[in-house]
Amino acid sequence: MTITEPAAAAVATTSPEAMSRPTVMALPSTPFLEVETSVVTDRLGELAAALPGIAIHYAVKANPHPQVLAAVVAAGGNFDVASPTEVRACLAAGAAPDDLVYSNPVKRRDHVAESAALGVRIFVVDSPAEVRKVAEAAPGAAVLCRLVTSGDGSDWPLSRKYGCSVGQAVDILRLAVALGLDAAGVSFHVGSQQRDPNAWRSPIAAAATVFEAVRADGLSPWLLDLGGGFPARHEGDIPPLAAYGAVIEDQLRQSFGEHRPRTIAEPGRAVVGDAGALVTSVVGVVERGDNRWVYLDAGVFTGLVETLDEAIRYRIETSADGGPTGPCVLAGPTCDSADVLYQVTPVHLPLDLAEGDIVRLESAGAYTSCYSTVGFNGFDPLPVVVG
Amino acid sequence: MTITEPAAAAVATTSPEAMSRPTVMALPSTPFLEVETSVVTDRLGELAAALPGIAIHYAVKANPHPQVLAAVVAAGGNFDVASPTEVRACLAAGAAPDDLVYSNPVKRRDHVAESAALGVRIFVVDSPAEVRKVAEAAPGAAVLCRLVTSGDGSDWPLSRKYGCSVGQAVDILRLAVALGLDAAGVSFHVGSQQRDPNAWRSPIAAAATVFEAVRADGLSPWLLDLGGGFPARHEGDIPPLAAYGAVIEDQLRQSFGEHRPRTIAEPGRAVVGDAGALVTSVVGVVERGDNRWVYLDAGVFTGLVETLDEAIRYRIETSADGGPTGPCVLAGPTCDSADVLYQVTPVHLPLDLAEGDIVRLESAGAYTSCYSTVGFNGFDPLPVVVG
Repeated sequence: MTITEPAAAAVATTSPEAMSRPTVMALPSTPFLEVETSVVTDRLGELAAALPGIAIHYAVKANPHPQVLAAVVAAGGNFDVASPTEVRACLAAGAAPDDLVYSNPVKRRDHVAESAALGVRIFVVDSPAEVRKVAEAAPGAAVLCRLVTSGDGSDWPLSRKYGCSVGQAVDILRLAVALGLDAAGVSFHVGSQQRDPNAWRSPIAAAATVFEAVRADGLSPWLLDLGGGFPARHEGDIPPLAAYGAVIEDQLRQSFGEHRPRTIAEPGRAVVGDAGALVTSVVGVVERGDNRWVYLDAGVFTGLVETLDEAIRYRIETSADGGPTGPCVLAGPTCDSADVLYQVTPVHLPLDLAEGDIVRLESAGAYTSCYSTVGFNGFDPLPVVVG
Repeated sequence: MTITEPAAAAVATTSPEAMSRPTVMALPSTPFLEVETSVVTDRLGELAAALPGIAIHYAVKANPHPQVLAAVVAAGGNFDVASPTEVRACLAAGAAPDDLVYSNPVKRRDHVAESAALGVRIFVVDSPAEVRKVAEAAPGAAVLCRLVTSGDGSDWPLSRKYGCSVGQAVDILRLAVALGLDAAGVSFHVGSQQRDPNAWRSPIAAAATVFEAVRADGLSPWLLDLGGGFPARHEGDIPPLAAYGAVIEDQLRQSFGEHRPRTIAEPGRAVVGDAGALVTSVVGVVERGDNRWVYLDAGVFTGLVETLDEAIRYRIETSADGGPTGPCVLAGPTCDSADVLYQVTPVHLPLDLAEGDIVRLESAGAYTSCYSTVGFNGFDPLPVVVG
């Protein structure tokens, strides 16, 4: 990707002239998130090709920018939502409410009622209490029961916050029917930035066990939600999307045979991650004992929350690339000591990187602008510039 | 503190009727941060009493709400700022610009110039490059050189992100004078929620060594900044403020003797932490294997960032208090698996806590509303209700 120098109005250019280093020390109007909706479209096409017959429900939480949602609608995609605000954003982008999947397993009761009133029909649950809540707040709705997974193999793993066992899922779907709900099926999530396609095998097999058990009871489950977890191009190798598709297809065939339900997936990062770059400027470079510290004008509080514990490692390009590099600690601009991006495993950046140089965190379109604070320490929320 | 049921408009009441548990299942308009400015005033009085002769510069980053800043001005307090936005907020509250201390050691050059134009005169630095930046962007300004500390003893520790050695500080102050700046003195920070008053001893002694060395060169340093770190009433015992004052007074006497400089401190959490309560509702309670999970309508992405790694543990009161309690995991409302507050060390909450009950995180006035995201997952930023 070409390194660009943003103009004062925070509009990135791609002219050859823009590739030179800054000639003035005044900082450009960084930071901002540069999003290319054409990449969103491309990724949706690649996902559709890798996962034939599986409907794509983009996880709105990854990046809810209206133009991203519009690109998803234009590409024939659908949505995974978790709040009435996200429901309304999808409807505004042109989505049909009864195609949305409300994937938050533990919901505010008023949010269930509000979303049902907006036309949402499919809600994820993972406990008897939540089934009762949905039955009361959205009578007659369809429910997916979420199974617990290990999260092994993912960079941004799970915490056992959601999901139940196979036995509990069977009971929950039976309860749903007893309460007048449509026991639609099963969902799960293998953990975000999942590098191991085989992570889908065990939960697909578990889902098939649930389907079989409730079919034996006379229920008619019809929907399997494979969740998200498909990766973006962060640091380190990832398998091609086709490898995920091959494993999923193989496991669906093994587990469901001729009785395969309608199947959907909820990628977020894989759709919008590679579509964005977080464009920052170097505020200062300081030698501290054994470490060179590079301070950027964006950090943990302006969107880079996923660098906590150095979980997600962005690929980095700078306007000073080309010469020798060395290790450095990367930090954000606020006074907060927690505002450090990479320290345990330093990044390697040009030795002559200096104040005013541009540092681009690539594939940062997901979980950045939406994670930004309201303006901690007087640093504005991360703006989004859509190209 | 009295447990209150907020009315629909998110205005907390303190009427006795409000102490009963909700009679309807519809959730009140939680979450919100309830701030009592009278507590801000009280804490400033206690700090002044504990630290006689030491000017209090409230760290705006802890909570920049205009009414909090106004309470600080009314109590005769001053400010520690880190960005032009914070400078303007203080000026709007009635502060004099030349009393502000700009404590961010690594600053955007345009922020230095903008703040100087607004009348700010004192800037913290910790490297030769930053001294040159200040000399160019704010000619003739005063600089404090920040010393590194260990952060040992604090709950929200430092990362060696800022601060230099005694020897470097001496060189930096000499450079400042050579560049036409006022070499005002030394600053440091012992780490936030610092439970050990003795943490101030070593850096005060180090500061005195710097003062002595540069005085021998003919410089006239006049300002010592003791930073923040004074605690709020989170879980666990903390020494009384008087214990901090006694240690600091003793060490100032030992280290500076008759040549004590003007001395300031920059408390944030100690001023506003106890003034706020984060009022949330229970969204759901789910038994998961060995754990009871309680889901609140506020979490990591609506202000509770300091629960990451369970660093800051808030005292908790609920509208169901009184009966037997048991351990539970506490989680936030978003779909994100990272949105878990306390899991490694569970909290103990009433066994009959249920959907719709109120859970108050006490002493949550600092680093909450300002840490809130712009609305991740469609959950609004944390509103502040000032009483």
